Amino acid sequence: MTDARLDPVLDRIDAELPAALDRLMTLLRIPSISTDPAHAEDCARTADWLAEDLKSLGIDAAPRPTTGHPMVVGHGQDAGPHLLFYGHYDVQPVDPLDQWKTPPFEPEMQETTHGKVIRGRGASDDKGQLMTFVEACRAWKAVHGSLPAQITFFFEGEEESGSPSLIPFMKEHAADLTADIALICDTSMVSPGVPSIASQLRGMLKDEFTITGPRIDLHSGHYGGPALNPLKEIARIVASFHDADGRVAVEGFYEGVDEISDELKRQWENSGFDERTYLESVGFTQSHGEAGYSTLEQQWSRPTLEVNGLWGGYMGPGSKTVIPSQAHCKITCRLVGDMDPDKLRQKIRAHVAAQLSPDAKVTWDGDLDGAPAAVMNTDRPEFEAARQALTDEWNREAVLVGMGGSIPIAGYFKDILDMDAMLIGFAKDDDAIHSPNEKYDVESFHKGIRSWARVLAALSA
Amino acid sequence: MTDARLDPVLDRIDAELPAALDRLMTLLRIPSISTDPAHAEDCARTADWLAEDLKSLGIDAAPRPTTGHPMVVGHGQDAGPHLLFYGHYDVQPVDPLDQWKTPPFEPEMQETTHGKVIRGRGASDDKGQLMTFVEACRAWKAVHGSLPAQITFFFEGEEESGSPSLIPFMKEHAADLTADIALICDTSMVSPGVPSIASQLRGMLKDEFTITGPRIDLHSGHYGGPALNPLKEIARIVASFHDADGRVAVEGFYEGVDEISDELKRQWENSGFDERTYLESVGFTQSHGEAGYSTLEQQWSRPTLEVNGLWGGYMGPGSKTVIPSQAHCKITCRLVGDMDPDKLRQKIRAHVAAQLSPDAKVTWDGDLDGAPAAVMNTDRPEFEAARQALTDEWNREAVLVGMGGSIPIAGYFKDILDMDAMLIGFAKDDDAIHSPNEKYDVESFHKGIRSWARVLAALSA
Repeated sequence: MTDARLDPVLDRIDAELPAALDRLMTLLRIPSISTDPAHAEDCARTADWLAEDLKSLGIDAAPRPTTGHPMVVGHGQDAGPHLLFYGHYDVQPVDPLDQWKTPPFEPEMQETTHGKVIRGRGASDDKGQLMTFVEACRAWKAVHGSLPAQITFFFEGEEESGSPSLIPFMKEHAADLTADIALICDTSMVSPGVPSIASQLRGMLKDEFTITGPRIDLHSGHYGGPALNPLKEIARIVASFHDADGRVAVEGFYEGVDEISDELKRQWENSGFDERTYLESVGFTQSHGEAGYSTLEQQWSRPTLEVNGLWGGYMGPGSKTVIPSQAHCKITCRLVGDMDPDKLRQKIRAHVAAQLSPDAKVTWDGDLDGAPAAVMNTDRPEFEAARQALTDEWNREAVLVGMGGSIPIAGYFKDILDMDAMLIGFAKDDDAIHSPNEKYDVESFHKGIRSWARVLAALSA
Repeated sequence: MTDARLDPVLDRIDAELPAALDRLMTLLRIPSISTDPAHAEDCARTADWLAEDLKSLGIDAAPRPTTGHPMVVGHGQDAGPHLLFYGHYDVQPVDPLDQWKTPPFEPEMQETTHGKVIRGRGASDDKGQLMTFVEACRAWKAVHGSLPAQITFFFEGEEESGSPSLIPFMKEHAADLTADIALICDTSMVSPGVPSIASQLRGMLKDEFTITGPRIDLHSGHYGGPALNPLKEIARIVASFHDADGRVAVEGFYEGVDEISDELKRQWENSGFDERTYLESVGFTQSHGEAGYSTLEQQWSRPTLEVNGLWGGYMGPGSKTVIPSQAHCKITCRLVGDMDPDKLRQKIRAHVAAQLSPDAKVTWDGDLDGAPAAVMNTDRPEFEAARQALTDEWNREAVLVGMGGSIPIAGYFKDILDMDAMLIGFAKDDDAIHSPNEKYDVESFHKGIRSWARVLAALSA
């Protein structure tokens, strides 16, 4: 089925690519690190910039204050199916800064052996992906004077820091945010050039604990031997989280975890995922996850308990003969199936308590956010329409895939607004999101914009 | 045996205490943190101050440059036995700074339930202890116009950072530094009011390693499961250092370790050491060391492998869903008996290498300094003379004790200059050396000065 409306839009997108890249660069220069209070003003500036950009498309948009960073909500007045598009404008912290080859907030176009890339924090996650949809709308508006659907834009500024304001905001503004279906651009392609629609996402649980041993820091000579060392204590506790097969050893951890269907397993095996490239690109010769599961299963359909930060004692130059009073650990779990974040949190805390030596104390100070895993309603006709549109753009059969990451918003749309979501993204495994030297391929950006133009045509046909 | 020379010196010390405290305060205000290159200039200023102070006693003193921080060497021209006094003017880092109730380098006199104390970094270790000897000399000189012995002063500025310049300096200036016996004031009293001469010291070994997992920091969603997490890896390695009985599990670790004699065991049991107070003062209800050994044995005659720093991943505010590329660990061992630091280093490195998972790499970047344990030559008559002098001052039988800390200088004096050393110190277990809110009791300072005056009389009788 060809759509006469589409070709001029695609031509416009090709012609306007340099201008679209300039706009993305401008957006990337604002250091909107949401987890660091020092960057609150930068987050507000980013929200303002996006609202202004939407207004230039004739969208009635404005930043909406929250107790945290502002949301941006915009309403298009055009006819057609009612679609909501979600993206987030906040980014991850940049440390370790010394590993960046170029300053994280001074984005650059760079030629690489794999083609042109946009280098900088947020280039892929999620500013670059967010703008693919905005640019598709801009082209459509420029060519046809209107958008092919009634589109609500919803941009968040706290996705990288647990979305503390999201649920209250969605509940308060439910009418404002409800559409026929939500479109989300915050996911990656299963392998280069293979357009992917995410049909299941892992959930997330975060927590943080401190182990206290002695009342004060001690001299390792005067107390070394008799003293309980919280660094050794926390190491023993962290080591107890997993068994020799890489299975999480927390009692009841796997409650609610199901094996995936043979059909899904077959689809994943045929998804074009290149295990060797995926592992070698980060320096691995083998997969290190739970024994008995494929790399994709370990990444998409198995839960994890990861340590994201571990610290205590002297970390400066030289040495210090100290037995510190405290040691600290930040953890996150990825959830699948029906795992309940709150119940799991209690199981993990009970496990740690059970490991403690006499005289050792544990205190928990994690932000208590968590989100269960999400499975998309792929029976909706929009999924087949989008799958066809993506297949047309990439000349490669689009596939339904899982995602190892957590995008709680998909679950919230369902639970709070009873709205299904469809996740389409163009990121690549080697984008180094959350890492130094994050990048987004210009091809992902360009064909991503074209892909959304095609999806808009397909959903409004 | 009474010594007519002594009483007027002791009277002078009592009368001059306020002035002596003022001088110590001035010395404590200089932040001479030797391990931090940012404080090199402060170390140099401290050396200058000490050289000037010695000159005011008629000592021919000057800072002596090294490739690191300067030494201070001073020679008295008086008659009598040739004694060398050693102390160190550098101090430990002050972190965690937020746990200090008063600024570490703005020393204060404070009233406590245990009496008056001088609060500040270095008050006890070692500036306060060093000045007890200098003040004793000042009083003697003021009263008698000369010192009762030929005294060489030797102050180091790198004791808290592995003494990198010490051995080359001692070798180069051996003639300059050789005396009949070395006196060292850098140790503590086994219990409050019990004068103590250290007859054995644990040795020291320092090392530091980095575990590298993935080539770059990874997103814990996209890679969590298949990825090797260096934080979990380093936790497992650290946990493998000890068995369930608190014994070090590194193969061959206890080579060269002997049980102490029944006689020494008896002396220690009668040393007045109050185990309960020692443990409770830092928040312990029990000893956590090697099973089957008393707290004093764990502290004085058993070796340790301690973790002094452990870090990796995200340590900032909020959370970050990262699997870091690297994790780091600083360790120190306390050595006893004939344990060889260099052989032990290889055993520990071999142990770590044997624990590594596939794709995990270890790199070692510790400064390679180490020192074996030291046992003093207590048969020398100076020990009995000093023991009697200390007993007279404190009205409590002075005892020969072990020390958990490491003072490599004692071993160097023997190995390089063939000079025995005698360690007498007045610090207390609750001085919080190397910790926030370090203090030195005014009683330790005052009676410490008086003790040295008595020891000088006894050694020159």
